[in-house]
Amino acid sequence: MHILEKLDAITKKNKSLVCVGLDTVAARLPSPVLSSDNPVLAFNRRIIEATADIVQAYKLNLAFYEALGRFGYDTLRGTLKAIPGNVVVIGDGKRGDIGNTSVMYARALFEDLGFDAATVSPYMGFDSVKPFIDFSEKGVFVLALTSNPGSRDFQYLETGGTPLYRRVVEAVVRWNTDGNCGLVVGATHPDELAEVRAAVGDMPILVPGLGVQGGNVERTVEAAVTPSGMRAVFNASRAVLYAGSGSDFAECARRAVEELRDAVNTRIRPG
Amino acid sequence: MHILEKLDAITKKNKSLVCVGLDTVAARLPSPVLSSDNPVLAFNRRIIEATADIVQAYKLNLAFYEALGRFGYDTLRGTLKAIPGNVVVIGDGKRGDIGNTSVMYARALFEDLGFDAATVSPYMGFDSVKPFIDFSEKGVFVLALTSNPGSRDFQYLETGGTPLYRRVVEAVVRWNTDGNCGLVVGATHPDELAEVRAAVGDMPILVPGLGVQGGNVERTVEAAVTPSGMRAVFNASRAVLYAGSGSDFAECARRAVEELRDAVNTRIRPG
Repeated sequence: MHILEKLDAITKKNKSLVCVGLDTVAARLPSPVLSSDNPVLAFNRRIIEATADIVQAYKLNLAFYEALGRFGYDTLRGTLKAIPGNVVVIGDGKRGDIGNTSVMYARALFEDLGFDAATVSPYMGFDSVKPFIDFSEKGVFVLALTSNPGSRDFQYLETGGTPLYRRVVEAVVRWNTDGNCGLVVGATHPDELAEVRAAVGDMPILVPGLGVQGGNVERTVEAAVTPSGMRAVFNASRAVLYAGSGSDFAECARRAVEELRDAVNTRIRPG
Repeated sequence: MHILEKLDAITKKNKSLVCVGLDTVAARLPSPVLSSDNPVLAFNRRIIEATADIVQAYKLNLAFYEALGRFGYDTLRGTLKAIPGNVVVIGDGKRGDIGNTSVMYARALFEDLGFDAATVSPYMGFDSVKPFIDFSEKGVFVLALTSNPGSRDFQYLETGGTPLYRRVVEAVVRWNTDGNCGLVVGATHPDELAEVRAAVGDMPILVPGLGVQGGNVERTVEAAVTPSGMRAVFNASRAVLYAGSGSDFAECARRAVEELRDAVNTRIRPG
């Protein structure tokens, strides 16, 4: 199934544009899961069980699994296995390398691990992104304007009157011949988000930073969605995962997702 | 030991500025290793045994290990274990993410896996690179001008009269307060390599693309090294790994490294 078909179906079914970032840090786990054989996996399973009917997607940032060393791969796979098949799963690794190497990353993410979509860095240009796009049913979210302070270091540099991140947006629009490209634009830049949405039609936009990173929900949502209230993926990680720290941590996570979902939905009329 | 101390020591001991990229592809392995339990690891061990006294570094591109799925981590660790402790090992993952995430990547590469250095993408700016630099003994090679065709898509964009990759070079010079930063500049751009060398003093430069990717050895070497013939890391992967395909593949690999080392050394007078 093409990524857009899958994304639209789950958006409508779960009435949600919320993505939960499973960026689980072992040191921050609540005590109820600590006695498990694999506490990170046990925690992720509880979070998924508690939220899978009210999210659109889960985003797994690969760094948090690589940091687990020898246990990283099995924890990643176990987490993916716990996610219902109709929910979109995004492999967030911000990869990008010369062509023959990006092929390897794309195979690892799409074939071996079975992610529906991946994040990719644009710095190395078209041949570094193409191997991902060549999986024409899979989604490829290219970094344009990120949510962190360092987004100001290079992404805003003026290139002949146009900031660099807009050059990336223009390039991704050109590369999108199979309709499977998307962009990453952080919630911390609502004005730019609105401009990007106007430039890309109904291309999906992954919007991190709505929770802990301080993005304003109201402005961000209105800026990011299409006129029919679709194709935005609002990711929250820490604000959901660590909403509670007691035995009710999963219920607290669910409430955090519900609140975010409702806050988003009041700003739109989902198509 | 600080990365520069380790790099200079092995450069002098092995009289070599050559780095072998262990970007091993299972489908291209020679028949002598196919009967092994882990053919990729068996191949890497043979290549390392045959070349460890004539290289300065090994570079492991993480994509090729991630593509091995469940066996990737153990293959990576086994390969690292086979490399003598005095040879520099570079984790080539071109990582980069928001601060709390780059911390995880840096820990995975430097603490868990024990790499001496890593490659990092600059697109997300200072806070995405800083967690790597904060490991003040480890080397951080930031992508400036890469060797692939896509390097022309964004890296050359003029930003107020200065191409983007030079902005990255300027930033890395500012960030280099602990002396552990380096840059990646592809062998396919010898003129720009000479300009970068002039701008960064004796900062190490990782130069991929000297073999299969078609970089001209003579011009590239003269452009990349310091006046005393140091601090350049010339990486060759496919030209070494697949120099032979029979039972003498390791000897062929050694000869390929010797040829490259000699071709490099005739252009310099190592300090």
